[in-house]
Amino acid sequence: MKAKVYVTLKQGVLDPQGKAIHHSVELLGFENIQDIRQGKYFEIQLNGSLSKDEAEKLVTQIAKEVLSNPVIEDYKVEIEDL
Amino acid sequence: MKAKVYVTLKQGVLDPQGKAIHHSVELLGFENIQDIRQGKYFEIQLNGSLSKDEAEKLVTQIAKEVLSNPVIEDYKVEIEDL
Repeated sequence: MKAKVYVTLKQGVLDPQGKAIHHSVELLGFENIQDIRQGKYFEIQLNGSLSKDEAEKLVTQIAKEVLSNPVIEDYKVEIEDL
Repeated sequence: MKAKVYVTLKQGVLDPQGKAIHHSVELLGFENIQDIRQGKYFEIQLNGSLSKDEAEKLVTQIAKEVLSNPVIEDYKVEIEDL
Protein backbone atom coordinates (compact mmCIF):
# COMPACT_ATOMS: atom_id res chain seq x y z
CA MET A 1 0.00 0.00 0.00
CA LYS A 2 1.19 3.50 -0.76
CA ALA A 3 0.55 6.75 1.10
CA LYS A 4 1.06 10.31 -0.03
CA VAL A 5 1.68 13.17 2.39
CA TYR A 6 1.48 16.85 1.41
CA VAL A 7 3.02 19.39 3.77
CA THR A 8 2.25 23.07 3.15
CA LEU A 9 2.99 26.27 5.02
CA LYS A 10 -0.03 27.63 6.89
CA GLN A 11 -1.77 30.64 5.40
CA GLY A 12 -0.08 33.79 6.61
CA VAL A 13 3.33 32.16 7.07
CA LEU A 14 5.91 33.83 4.84
CA ASP A 15 7.36 31.63 2.08
CA PRO A 16 10.65 33.19 0.88
CA GLN A 17 11.44 30.18 -1.32
CA GLY A 18 8.10 30.45 -3.09
CA LYS A 19 8.62 34.21 -3.50
CA ALA A 20 12.05 33.60 -5.06
CA ILE A 21 10.58 31.09 -7.52
CA HIS A 22 7.75 33.51 -8.36
CA HIS A 23 10.32 36.22 -9.06
CA SER A 24 12.42 33.93 -11.28
CA VAL A 25 9.35 32.83 -13.22
CA GLU A 26 8.46 36.49 -13.86
CA LEU A 27 12.02 37.32 -14.93
CA LEU A 28 11.81 34.44 -17.43
CA GLY A 29 8.81 36.17 -19.00
CA PHE A 30 5.92 34.03 -17.74
CA GLU A 31 2.79 36.10 -17.14
CA ASN A 32 -0.52 35.65 -15.31
CA ILE A 33 1.08 34.15 -12.20
CA GLN A 34 -0.19 35.73 -8.99
CA ASP A 35 1.63 33.68 -6.39
CA ILE A 36 3.70 30.52 -5.95
CA ARG A 37 4.05 28.65 -2.67
CA GLN A 38 6.34 25.69 -2.16
CA GLY A 39 5.52 22.69 -0.03
CA LYS A 40 6.85 19.21 0.53
CA TYR A 41 5.56 15.94 -0.84
CA PHE A 42 6.29 12.43 0.45
CA GLU A 43 5.52 9.02 -0.99
CA ILE A 44 5.52 6.30 1.64
CA GLN A 45 5.54 2.61 0.75
CA LEU A 46 3.85 0.52 3.45
CA ASN A 47 3.84 -3.19 4.21
CA GLY A 48 0.90 -4.86 2.53
CA SER A 49 -0.29 -6.44 5.77
CA LEU A 50 -1.82 -3.20 7.09
CA SER A 51 -5.49 -2.39 6.66
CA LYS A 52 -6.40 0.97 5.13
CA ASP A 53 -7.46 2.32 8.54
CA GLU A 54 -4.22 1.21 10.20
CA ALA A 55 -2.22 2.70 7.34
CA GLU A 56 -4.05 6.01 7.64
CA LYS A 57 -3.49 6.12 11.41
CA LEU A 58 0.22 5.27 11.08
CA VAL A 59 0.92 7.74 8.28
CA THR A 60 -1.05 10.54 9.98
CA GLN A 61 1.08 10.08 13.10
CA ILE A 62 4.29 10.18 11.05
CA ALA A 63 3.09 13.26 9.13
CA LYS A 64 2.28 15.03 12.40
CA GLU A 65 5.35 14.06 14.40
CA VAL A 66 8.12 13.75 11.82
CA LEU A 67 7.31 15.24 8.43
CA SER A 68 5.71 18.55 9.43
CA ASN A 69 6.20 21.35 11.93
CA PRO A 70 2.68 21.84 13.31
CA VAL A 71 3.46 25.41 14.39
CA ILE A 72 3.83 26.66 10.82
CA GLU A 73 2.75 23.80 8.56
CA ASP A 74 -0.38 21.86 7.64
CA TYR A 75 -0.35 18.30 6.35
CA LYS A 76 -2.69 16.15 4.27
CA VAL A 77 -2.58 12.36 4.08
CA GLU A 78 -3.87 10.22 1.20
CA ILE A 79 -3.87 6.42 1.23
CA GLU A 80 -3.75 4.68 -2.14
CA ASP A 81 -5.14 1.17 -2.40
CA LEU A 82 -3.19 -0.70 -5.04
CA MET B 1 -7.59 29.61 -10.65
CA LYS B 2 -5.15 27.43 -8.76
CA ALA B 3 -2.66 24.88 -10.04
CA LYS B 4 -0.77 22.18 -8.18
CA VAL B 5 2.54 20.79 -9.36
CA TYR B 6 4.11 17.63 -7.95
CA VAL B 7 7.79 16.99 -8.70
CA THR B 8 9.19 13.56 -7.87
CA LEU B 9 12.51 11.85 -8.47
CA LYS B 10 12.38 9.33 -11.31
CA GLN B 11 12.36 5.66 -10.38
CA GLY B 12 15.91 4.43 -9.94
CA VAL B 13 17.28 7.83 -8.93
CA LEU B 14 18.77 7.68 -5.43
CA ASP B 15 16.95 9.75 -2.80
CA PRO B 16 19.31 10.26 0.18
CA GLN B 17 16.89 12.69 1.87
CA GLY B 18 14.09 10.13 1.71
CA LYS B 19 16.45 7.43 3.02
CA ALA B 20 17.43 9.68 5.96
CA ILE B 21 13.77 10.29 6.82
CA HIS B 22 13.04 6.56 6.55
CA HIS B 23 15.91 5.84 8.93
CA SER B 24 14.71 8.48 11.45
CA VAL B 25 11.18 7.13 11.32
CA GLU B 26 12.47 3.64 12.10
CA LEU B 27 14.64 4.92 14.96
CA LEU B 28 11.53 6.55 16.42
CA GLY B 29 9.91 3.13 16.53
CA PHE B 30 7.47 3.30 13.63
CA GLU B 31 7.06 -0.07 11.93
CA ASN B 32 5.66 -1.36 8.63
CA ILE B 33 7.33 1.36 6.54
CA GLN B 34 9.10 -0.05 3.48
CA ASP B 35 10.31 3.13 1.82
CA ILE B 36 9.96 6.92 1.91
CA ARG B 37 10.72 9.18 -1.03
CA GLN B 38 10.62 12.95 -0.84
CA GLY B 39 9.40 15.21 -3.61
CA LYS B 40 8.41 18.83 -4.05
CA TYR B 41 4.97 20.35 -4.17
CA PHE B 42 3.99 23.76 -5.54
CA GLU B 43 0.73 25.69 -5.34
CA ILE B 44 0.45 28.29 -8.09
CA GLN B 45 -2.21 31.01 -8.01
CA LEU B 46 -3.14 32.14 -11.53
CA ASN B 47 -4.96 35.17 -12.85
CA GLY B 48 -8.65 34.40 -13.23
CA SER B 49 -8.70 35.53 -16.86
CA LEU B 50 -7.04 32.32 -18.12
CA SER B 51 -9.06 29.43 -19.49
CA LYS B 52 -8.40 25.99 -18.03
CA ASP B 53 -6.54 24.94 -21.18
CA GLU B 54 -4.35 28.05 -21.15
CA ALA B 55 -3.65 27.54 -17.45
CA GLU B 56 -2.65 23.93 -18.02
CA LYS B 57 -0.32 24.87 -20.89
CA LEU B 58 1.30 27.69 -18.89
CA VAL B 59 1.81 25.66 -15.72
CA THR B 60 3.10 22.62 -17.63
CA GLN B 61 5.71 24.83 -19.27
CA ILE B 62 6.75 26.29 -15.89
CA ALA B 63 6.88 22.83 -14.32
CA LYS B 64 9.08 21.56 -17.15
CA GLU B 65 11.42 24.54 -17.46
CA VAL B 66 11.66 25.95 -13.94
CA LEU B 67 10.33 23.66 -11.24
CA SER B 68 11.82 20.32 -12.26
CA ASN B 69 15.06 18.89 -13.59
CA PRO B 70 13.86 16.66 -16.44
CA VAL B 71 17.02 14.54 -16.30
CA ILE B 72 16.21 13.11 -12.87
CA GLU B 73 12.69 14.29 -12.04
CA ASP B 74 9.12 13.76 -13.23
CA TYR B 75 6.34 16.31 -12.77
CA LYS B 76 2.56 16.19 -12.62
CA VAL B 77 0.26 19.20 -13.09
CA GLU B 78 -3.27 19.55 -11.74
CA ILE B 79 -5.53 22.52 -12.46
CA GLU B 80 -8.20 23.30 -9.89
CA ASP B 81 -11.29 25.17 -11.01
CA LEU B 82 -12.53 27.31 -8.13
